[in-house]
Amino acid sequence: MTSYLIGLIGSGIGPSLSPPLHEREAAHHGLRYVYRLLDTDRLGDDAGELLRTARRFGYDGLNITHPCKQAVIPHLDELSPDAAMLGAVNTVVFDGERAVGHNTDWTGFAESFTRGLPGAPTRHVVQLGAGGAGAAVGHALLTLGADVLTVVDADPGRAAALADRLAERHGAGRVRQGRTADLPALLEGADGLLHATPTGMAHHPGMPLPAGLLRPELWVADIVYRPLETELLKQARALGCRTLDGGGMVVFQAAHAFRLFTGRTPDAERMLAHLTDLTD
Amino acid sequence: MTSYLIGLIGSGIGPSLSPPLHEREAAHHGLRYVYRLLDTDRLGDDAGELLRTARRFGYDGLNITHPCKQAVIPHLDELSPDAAMLGAVNTVVFDGERAVGHNTDWTGFAESFTRGLPGAPTRHVVQLGAGGAGAAVGHALLTLGADVLTVVDADPGRAAALADRLAERHGAGRVRQGRTADLPALLEGADGLLHATPTGMAHHPGMPLPAGLLRPELWVADIVYRPLETELLKQARALGCRTLDGGGMVVFQAAHAFRLFTGRTPDAERMLAHLTDLTD
Repeated sequence: MTSYLIGLIGSGIGPSLSPPLHEREAAHHGLRYVYRLLDTDRLGDDAGELLRTARRFGYDGLNITHPCKQAVIPHLDELSPDAAMLGAVNTVVFDGERAVGHNTDWTGFAESFTRGLPGAPTRHVVQLGAGGAGAAVGHALLTLGADVLTVVDADPGRAAALADRLAERHGAGRVRQGRTADLPALLEGADGLLHATPTGMAHHPGMPLPAGLLRPELWVADIVYRPLETELLKQARALGCRTLDGGGMVVFQAAHAFRLFTGRTPDAERMLAHLTDLTD
Repeated sequence: MTSYLIGLIGSGIGPSLSPPLHEREAAHHGLRYVYRLLDTDRLGDDAGELLRTARRFGYDGLNITHPCKQAVIPHLDELSPDAAMLGAVNTVVFDGERAVGHNTDWTGFAESFTRGLPGAPTRHVVQLGAGGAGAAVGHALLTLGADVLTVVDADPGRAAALADRLAERHGAGRVRQGRTADLPALLEGADGLLHATPTGMAHHPGMPLPAGLLRPELWVADIVYRPLETELLKQARALGCRTLDGGGMVVFQAAHAFRLFTGRTPDAERMLAHLTDLTD
């Protein structure tokens, strides 16, 4: 029987849910599967060295998180086209002599959105946050067919850079850059709000925008998953908005990585239920 | 649920049976357990570096084999008394901040001998082979109560060195050094023959001594386990000798290491049956 040894490279990953999510799902498939944390705070953050050593010491694949999603790229033999476009890798598969980089953050969000907000209109979506997660979710929404995405970030340069990158891939007419000051007008004409900043996380609580900008017709998707119910989602639900929490993205990026590592299709519902257990 | 990541450090370990022996037994205990080969032919043979890196990259423990059983010692924080006396470590447990060395080769052989040749007389045992395995099995026999052990090796200096070491621990009167030329006389007065050289292995076939020196009253124990039926054991069985093959030592050293790694007591009969499957 094949066995799988998978690691997560990143900083401050002690509380990561990836080890139990992967290991429990693997157990359901009868797979021998160990998922270990390779914390750069302890091991140093030379992404190339970490990658090479993990491989030499028997790892079959890696998940990559902050701050190594970009740094790992020059050390790979091959990139999936989407990982190349996003400039970010969260999954590395050691395939024989080759190290191949993938990005399952965007596919994970795409699946979460499709399942969690079926039929949600996407003529105009406002995205708040243009960091690494923002790139993934923006790409996902446009790939799913959103007509127009407006990217807003507290750092206008970052918003412009992401908008340009997404426009290059999806067409200039489909991506705009917006200013924080324009959020009221932008949201008035929008079908949905995609939240991709850290605000609302347990150690960074609060609202990423004034609650008064929400209205019942707007769907609201959050990428924060700890807690699953952020202040933003709570307020949106109270108003009657359709909402999507960040749990699905976590589960599906893990599920898609699991499939890349093992060739097996995980049971998404079972993994979602497991996440709920873990975050209770 | 705890998971276990164990490695084997050594040279030419590709065909090792340790991964399936450990992993299958762990599965019976419902443990998540991955056992990986860390081949020095690929990774280099700096035992200290291998030990430190394996630990940093998530390993919980290691088995150690040729050529690192001695080289690993200066890099450990603690040694079991028997490993210290034998000057050889085949099992390292990472216990919090400490790396602790053990030797389960000798305890493995002791258990194999006790189970496989119950009640065998040990007033005088002739041991052929004074290398690392010879040290372990000689120590085992003397610990089990053999009255006199005579150590013979093609290299008389090596036989003398091992005899001295065993005499220091078990008493000068209980250990002797013999010459190859004296084997006929030695075996005439012996209860048993303990074979601890590589002769009889698949890539090193043949008899380690003239078949004419065997007689039906002599028990014969071999440490070679690939094949389980060596030429020596075949000839001994044909004569009617009680025999012990090398499979038990392999299984019990693995079982004892498994217990050190996990705190669980493995099912020895099940592991023996598994070894038979693997070596068929």
